[in-house]
Amino acid sequence: MPQLSTRAVRLPPSPIRKLAGYAEAAKKRGVKVYHLNIGQPDVETPPEFFQAIKQADLRVLAYSPSAGFPGLLTEIANYYDRLGYPLESSDIIVTTGASEALTFAFAAILNAGDEVIVPEPYYANYSSFSLAKDATVVPVTTRIEDGFALPDMSAFEERITPRTKAILICNPGNPTGVLYPRESLEELRKICLKHDLFLIADEVYREFAYDGHQHHSTLELDGMADHVIVVDSISKRFSACGARIGCVISRNRELMGAIMKMAQARLSPPTLGQIGAEAVYKMPPDYYHGVVCEYASRRDVLVEELSKIDGVVCPPINGAFYAMVRLPVEDSDQFCQWLLEDFEHEGATVMLAPGSGFYATPGLGRDEVRIAYVLNADDLRAAVRCLGAALQQANSLKLNATR
Amino acid sequence: MPQLSTRAVRLPPSPIRKLAGYAEAAKKRGVKVYHLNIGQPDVETPPEFFQAIKQADLRVLAYSPSAGFPGLLTEIANYYDRLGYPLESSDIIVTTGASEALTFAFAAILNAGDEVIVPEPYYANYSSFSLAKDATVVPVTTRIEDGFALPDMSAFEERITPRTKAILICNPGNPTGVLYPRESLEELRKICLKHDLFLIADEVYREFAYDGHQHHSTLELDGMADHVIVVDSISKRFSACGARIGCVISRNRELMGAIMKMAQARLSPPTLGQIGAEAVYKMPPDYYHGVVCEYASRRDVLVEELSKIDGVVCPPINGAFYAMVRLPVEDSDQFCQWLLEDFEHEGATVMLAPGSGFYATPGLGRDEVRIAYVLNADDLRAAVRCLGAALQQANSLKLNATR
Repeated sequence: MPQLSTRAVRLPPSPIRKLAGYAEAAKKRGVKVYHLNIGQPDVETPPEFFQAIKQADLRVLAYSPSAGFPGLLTEIANYYDRLGYPLESSDIIVTTGASEALTFAFAAILNAGDEVIVPEPYYANYSSFSLAKDATVVPVTTRIEDGFALPDMSAFEERITPRTKAILICNPGNPTGVLYPRESLEELRKICLKHDLFLIADEVYREFAYDGHQHHSTLELDGMADHVIVVDSISKRFSACGARIGCVISRNRELMGAIMKMAQARLSPPTLGQIGAEAVYKMPPDYYHGVVCEYASRRDVLVEELSKIDGVVCPPINGAFYAMVRLPVEDSDQFCQWLLEDFEHEGATVMLAPGSGFYATPGLGRDEVRIAYVLNADDLRAAVRCLGAALQQANSLKLNATR
Repeated sequence: MPQLSTRAVRLPPSPIRKLAGYAEAAKKRGVKVYHLNIGQPDVETPPEFFQAIKQADLRVLAYSPSAGFPGLLTEIANYYDRLGYPLESSDIIVTTGASEALTFAFAAILNAGDEVIVPEPYYANYSSFSLAKDATVVPVTTRIEDGFALPDMSAFEERITPRTKAILICNPGNPTGVLYPRESLEELRKICLKHDLFLIADEVYREFAYDGHQHHSTLELDGMADHVIVVDSISKRFSACGARIGCVISRNRELMGAIMKMAQARLSPPTLGQIGAEAVYKMPPDYYHGVVCEYASRRDVLVEELSKIDGVVCPPINGAFYAMVRLPVEDSDQFCQWLLEDFEHEGATVMLAPGSGFYATPGLGRDEVRIAYVLNADDLRAAVRCLGAALQQANSLKLNATR
């Protein structure tokens, strides 16, 4: 049999989806599974999305231009304009989700052996996308005790080598829920200019900032037109994960020229998703307000219910819709599997993403899990109570030693 | 400014789309442009596709499973079963078009520096996808004089090195319209087994076989379960290019395991396209018959009209909906640009894909163009007559020296 590539063998399984088989088996046994493992909101997609597709009344489902439909590009530019970040249409290329946006960005800047510095814990697929380019994620560890705030910039500088090409942040943070203050971005700006690095910002959760906190985009940063690459998506903003519509944004002409060639090679992003996206980007600002209020109240439910469980540590959560939570377990991989294989409480169990998959440093995150609070308040409350019952049972079974 | 990756700089522009700017400018001047440059059929997408999406009546546009919806996987397996190629659902992973299918296949087997042997002329994006893995396409030249049939297998064997990982074919051929006889596949089988190579087959045009010729899939080949990788798509079969739904197929478990990790990293293929795809895969065999008859008659129109133009060489076309045609011009890149910039005939012009972009060997294809016969008979006839007028004018202008 011919050999697979080295990267194919090294690719890690998704910590978010690797337990999917156990979840399916649980459902087949009649157990209800609360999915807190994946950022798939149950919030309704705006009906305008589907109406636009119906009204388009297509006869031939054709390719779009490789950079996306001009009408969608205009609406995305208008959206950024309202946020205070003026862009030309040519600064934007529509992609098949933020996944493709990041794939394009990495392909455009990373040679084999290059390095990208990423604060950990981080969205696990960043590793897969860098490995796809035979490049490496170099982690800068952030700690639950510090609310996953960025450490002193010396921690970044210590990691910079001649192979470092970029710093990648997710703001607000998946999986941490951290929202970086403007000062942190300014610090990153200084480092990127000093060492001539790209600054890639995954800002798909931009609107999800709570308690009056304000999100600051890397697009605000002075003198960074050639350095900043923003990765964006409609998936979370409009609860349209299945549309697979995102975009990559940069004011660096040469970079966008290279990405355009990649966009042409894959022909076009999905046509139907683009038609829906154009419609929802036209929605008024109060749409976002409603969505954020809904998530803020879910966040409150999560924090309240977690506070009732002994030994659980939940850091402050200012943004996105995730929490990286410490559990009184020794091995959350084993615990999360046990939840699906052997546990039920009132006919239900809960699916979580084990923490270790979000760290590059071996051994970290083994007592943490990522919780996506994407369920409505009632389901979320039931799910966290289910987790509480599970921790109690696991403890009494001594399945997992308490801390 | 930070440096781009080597591959970003080396990536070739798409020969199919690189003249898009000139076409837009021509349209703005009020000139009608016949698009023979791109495989975007004007055939109606089956209404069943759109009906299925309407009937799904979604409230939340959610991710699908990373491998695709089980219902779609079943329908794809049923389709292959009807063709006589029994598959398990697990032999199939749904992708975002054939582009992603090929990207996954390359990522799974190619290390940096590896080589893929491809008969040229070939679909230009194969170069982009291999370059994305820092690998190289090694061409085996086929000739218009031979109807682009595969040469003696010694031509392949001469190109095999320790870095050769696969042979990649497109059957029926884009851009050539060639349909490989069963014997050619058997020859390729022998070479792949002898040298332990993967055999990747782009079979998206499988149904488009004319004049009673029969398409043979690489899935027929004995003893090749671990070697064959099929790349497929609904784009052409169901005239649904904008759905961005394809699939990658292999009976090699290890390979499919690696591709599954990649599929999970990018989360899921487009949900709406999958819903439509499941519906159209249920359509009866006579649907395909109707589509093939339509293209066969278009092929006849193309061949008839081309035969009226002095100095044009059109090889036999047995499959797909392309022809690689020799024109009496010295430089088809220049000629195709001139068609859009400076020529019009009865208010119209024609857009073609210059031949050079389909060859890896420098200098080949400069007097060839790829014609996609994707327009209805009337438009196609008008487009080819327009080309005839253009060649006459170019000749009298001595813009392009005659052969």
